[in-house]
Amino acid sequence: MNSTNEHFRPVALQHACRLINHGPTVLVTSAHDGRRNVMAAAWSMPVEFTPPRVAVVIDKHTFTRELVAASGVFGLCIPSVSFVDTTYAVGSESGRSVDKFARHQLVARPGPVLGVPLLETGCAAWLECRLIPEAHTEDAYDTCFGEVVAAAADERIFSGGHWQFGDDNKALHTIHHLGGGNFVSAGASFRAAQP
Amino acid sequence: MNSTNEHFRPVALQHACRLINHGPTVLVTSAHDGRRNVMAAAWSMPVEFTPPRVAVVIDKHTFTRELVAASGVFGLCIPSVSFVDTTYAVGSESGRSVDKFARHQLVARPGPVLGVPLLETGCAAWLECRLIPEAHTEDAYDTCFGEVVAAAADERIFSGGHWQFGDDNKALHTIHHLGGGNFVSAGASFRAAQP
Repeated sequence: MNSTNEHFRPVALQHACRLINHGPTVLVTSAHDGRRNVMAAAWSMPVEFTPPRVAVVIDKHTFTRELVAASGVFGLCIPSVSFVDTTYAVGSESGRSVDKFARHQLVARPGPVLGVPLLETGCAAWLECRLIPEAHTEDAYDTCFGEVVAAAADERIFSGGHWQFGDDNKALHTIHHLGGGNFVSAGASFRAAQP
Repeated sequence: MNSTNEHFRPVALQHACRLINHGPTVLVTSAHDGRRNVMAAAWSMPVEFTPPRVAVVIDKHTFTRELVAASGVFGLCIPSVSFVDTTYAVGSESGRSVDKFARHQLVARPGPVLGVPLLETGCAAWLECRLIPEAHTEDAYDTCFGEVVAAAADERIFSGGHWQFGDDNKALHTIHHLGGGNFVSAGASFRAAQP
């Protein structure tokens, strides 16, 4: 898969939505006509498992929104604890006048289906998505829907179709934005009693 | 506010969306015409801070969806670690033939603005919401939009408009569903470097 992180493995599409089921902050990646961008987004969620579909809020004034609208595709990359400073940085500046990949020395790999730039270094997983155009919700709520066409994850933290959060892989745990640069990481895993 | 948990305090509307900014699992509460229900939902997100608006996925085949459609209102209650078994239980059974509040001995308080049944015991916070009817997205993606009209939180875990996750209040930390009854709790808090 031309991976930039040797630990990444493909995730079956029927498991792809599990990657964001627990509400991690994501990085939205985009490209069009020779330009590209990456921004942080705290607001995303699955809306369907099969076919795997997601919703993500992308402000209509952002450069990312412009690229996504023009290209019809986007990526959702899931940053790890180790990547929190870069995540916050790319969420605090516009890519309209600067290539944030170059500024932050980010190496992207092209998505296997759509060629969307995807991040693996510093990230635990990614989803490559095709925009499902929904003019009204994009306009009224900045909410963009997409269908996941490919996904992959670091096998040290997601394997067998499930997240594996443990004490031995804390640097890879997902991060969840509380606001203003404050984050909480995914902590202890536990299993509810079976009803 | 006729609270059922003495630690609950009102949350200013401009801070309400922070309650779900980090992607916790929520309990969707609803009532109409003498019937009421509560179900778990992993898929919700803010879509706007001001006015505070949210999106939540509620399957069209659920009893909750029926009550929400009929009443035009719903609650989002945010369960804590201590409430994980009940959260999973109410997400695994239908309320069409049983009152889940009675079955699980849940005491609800009426929301201050709309009278939606809200849970405080076992929960860290709640948001009382008015449905914003969007027939197409409700039908195509089971995605329901709502405007938050009131919110409150347990001051031991949310104060000054911010979550305060610490080692001293772990039983109150939010929970995030990974799938199949497996959850991860909100773990360590940290601050990103200021760009």
